[in-house]
Amino acid sequence: MTDPVFKKIEITGTSSSSIEEAISNAIARAAKTIRQMNWFEVVDTRGRIDNGGVTQWQVTIKIGFSLTEMQD
Amino acid sequence: MTDPVFKKIEITGTSSSSIEEAISNAIARAAKTIRQMNWFEVVDTRGRIDNGGVTQWQVTIKIGFSLTEMQD
Amino acid sequence: MTDPVFKKIEITGTSSSSIEEAISNAIARAAKTIRQMNWFEVVDTRGRIDNGGVTQWQVTIKIGFSLTEMQD
Amino acid sequence: MTDPVFKKIEITGTSSSSIEEAISNAIARAAKTIRQMNWFEVVDTRGRIDNGGVTQWQVTIKIGFSLTEMQD
Amino acid sequence: MTDPVFKKIEITGTSSSSIEEAISNAIARAAKTIRQMNWFEVVDTRGRIDNGGVTQWQVTIKIGFSLTEMQD
Amino acid sequence: MTDPVFKKIEITGTSSSSIEEAISNAIARAAKTIRQMNWFEVVDTRGRIDNGGVTQWQVTIKIGFSLTEMQD
Amino acid sequence: MTDPVFKKIEITGTSSSSIEEAISNAIARAAKTIRQMNWFEVVDTRGRIDNGGVTQWQVTIKIGFSLTEMQD
Amino acid sequence: MTDPVFKKIEITGTSSSSIEEAISNAIARAAKTIRQMNWFEVVDTRGRIDNGGVTQWQVTIKIGFSLTEMQD
Amino acid sequence: MTDPVFKKIEITGTSSSSIEEAISNAIARAAKTIRQMNWFEVVDTRGRIDNGGVTQWQVTIKIGFSLTEMQD
Amino acid sequence: MTDPVFKKIEITGTSSSSIEEAISNAIARAAKTIRQMNWFEVVDTRGRIDNGGVTQWQVTIKIGFSLTEMQD
Amino acid sequence: MTDPVFKKIEITGTSSSSIEEAISNAIARAAKTIRQMNWFEVVDTRGRIDNGGVTQWQVTIKIGFSLTEMQD
Amino acid sequence: MTDPVFKKIEITGTSSSSIEEAISNAIARAAKTIRQMNWFEVVDTRGRIDNGGVTQWQVTIKIGFSLTEMQD
Repeated sequence: MTDPVFKKIEITGTSSSSIEEAISNAIARAAKTIRQMNWFEVVDTRGRIDNGGVTQWQVTIKIGFSLTEMQD
Repeated sequence: MTDPVFKKIEITGTSSSSIEEAISNAIARAAKTIRQMNWFEVVDTRGRIDNGGVTQWQVTIKIGFSLTEMQD
Repeated sequence: MTDPVFKKIEITGTSSSSIEEAISNAIARAAKTIRQMNWFEVVDTRGRIDNGGVTQWQVTIKIGFSLTEMQD
Repeated sequence: MTDPVFKKIEITGTSSSSIEEAISNAIARAAKTIRQMNWFEVVDTRGRIDNGGVTQWQVTIKIGFSLTEMQD
Repeated sequence: MTDPVFKKIEITGTSSSSIEEAISNAIARAAKTIRQMNWFEVVDTRGRIDNGGVTQWQVTIKIGFSLTEMQD
Repeated sequence: MTDPVFKKIEITGTSSSSIEEAISNAIARAAKTIRQMNWFEVVDTRGRIDNGGVTQWQVTIKIGFSLTEMQD
Repeated sequence: MTDPVFKKIEITGTSSSSIEEAISNAIARAAKTIRQMNWFEVVDTRGRIDNGGVTQWQVTIKIGFSLTEMQD
Repeated sequence: MTDPVFKKIEITGTSSSSIEEAISNAIARAAKTIRQMNWFEVVDTRGRIDNGGVTQWQVTIKIGFSLTEMQD
Repeated sequence: MTDPVFKKIEITGTSSSSIEEAISNAIARAAKTIRQMNWFEVVDTRGRIDNGGVTQWQVTIKIGFSLTEMQD
Repeated sequence: MTDPVFKKIEITGTSSSSIEEAISNAIARAAKTIRQMNWFEVVDTRGRIDNGGVTQWQVTIKIGFSLTEMQD
Repeated sequence: MTDPVFKKIEITGTSSSSIEEAISNAIARAAKTIRQMNWFEVVDTRGRIDNGGVTQWQVTIKIGFSLTEMQD
Repeated sequence: MTDPVFKKIEITGTSSSSIEEAISNAIARAAKTIRQMNWFEVVDTRGRIDNGGVTQWQVTIKIGFSLTEMQD
């Protein structure tokens, strides 16, 4: 069996509710085309302010997934 | 029309409940004297521990806002 | 009275629910053997992904506590 | 409407003239296959030296673009 | 004579033309209310992309200026 | 009682004698207009050299202070 | 001739033997779909421990390759 | 079942032969008193030079291990 | 003879007088239970401010010491 | 043929006109005594401000050059 | 008049007394062969521990000096 | 006896075989003109890729050596 190899991509998810939901949204979107995602790492947390309040949480993460015969 | 210019200030908000609330508290306080805040960036997340539990979430953010004719 | 001295240790807590709970779990576990914990600092936020969703939030923190006569 | 999600890729552009042109060249090349690019961030500025002068400006940037129904 | 003390503020300037002009715009705007500015340090270089080209250079700098009897 | 909020500013103090005095000078100057300063963090230590010796210690610190009803 | 443009991707290679082999495995896997790879940069070195010994070396690298007419 | 919690400690291993052996030596020494070590991360690679050659490889790693009922 | 292995711990010392004394206090306290300490590295310098003056210097250091047969 | 070895030195160039010219000035000055310079990396960009405008661009770069039989 | 160019070198000074003296010793030694030194920046502060006390302060600084007709 | 002072220089060694050999090559080359080298620190690990395989390991290190009466 060969040694596993992983690719990491950088995705920014957003949410009007919470940091966790912004991350989950990023992963849910990536899941549409990537299989075998294994882990994520938070890179950066930001947000948009309108009228003195947070209206959008923006979290940039790196997602690691397996490179298999099927998937680059 | 002139090119927009922004100022960034650093604020630490606190909350007994969550990271998101600490950030929102920081922005709500800043909103008392600053208008046209546009975005924030999380710099640092800390907290106070009492009796083996978190009693205060402390989140330091940078807030970016427009420098206009009216506001420095 | 002597000047206080503190030790900092690095702990990774996990949770299936949220970043805050992962931190609280790390501190609760440390509280079993350490007294007089004073503060924490978030070092790193990661997580495990299964079937395209987050199944485990993993937050690494540093915990600062007092070194007293009683405790190293 | 769903919360927007963005992908960030890392590109190194080059130019014999200036830092700005190296960045513009990176973006122009990326534009051949990516739509809805929104922003860039400079990561690193380097260059090649020949005969005691700069012959190539090399600027690495991250480009953020929208992940839509159409585009991964 | 007392030892000089300086304050540093963080400003983001923008320009449609170049990195240098974005920096100069930031400083020109700050000069409306601050005297005795001495130096700047580039913190971050970003930009906006529209239709596959850079339409706005955004450079964040720190500006150092003297705190005198007259000015805080 | 509301959750406390703090602002952090960046000041460079100088001294011909020592690092500690440069920090104290920065804080003493800031104290002329800011009340309720709570803590500082050293960001950077530099100095000027004349005739092969240090003639000025320059220490940049961040100062954290309470934002109260009275003070922005 | 146009100025060359490069893309950088992030890959984690693994090996039970050495750091060098983990890197070579990452590059060998990437070579299945990418041509004209030019350089790599080590980002992070980690590993798995089983029964008190290293059983897997994990090295994350960035790989730079030419964007040509043929390849994005 | 409770959420797992991990502790991370920092160890510097040395070897006259290679980076990998320095890391393995660090882990082997830690294994004398710690069970259930799971992973390591390289923090720093240094070495001693004698007579113009490397005589000691020094690698500092962080080791993560499970905090169980049995082990703090 | 086996290759030496070292452990590094993180301690915050405090002093009302100087940065050097805060470091010495941290080491003196650690010396109560650790033998064969070899070196320290300054990680962070902070302090408490009361009434517009520094009342406590707080310096966080890493201390490296030998892991021997006798000591973990 | 032996494996090539390079030395890197750190130079700060200045210019009243632009960032690119400050870099070119640094390299031109270094070229007076160093041959076979191969590349540079930007480390830091700063500048002097007089009367509310930039009067000097200061760019610190690292320059890499070949160590040959002829040159140290 | 040509634009000034500076070179930066990295020196570690030591002292049994204080951080300031270690820095001054580094500069005094450099002054034996370098003229027109202008500034220094602290890079790293470490020290040696013997018998539970600091016996040597080790401070690494960068020194900037003018490259003139006379001096490389 | 005076307090020792050290200088640190930055060298990139290369090898077609391994990371360790690239470091050793850097030190061997430096040894041709520098005496009393004491330690090195790895700064950066990179490499060249040809035909989908690593053909050159490139490791940048800092080398610390004693400044004595004899040597600058």
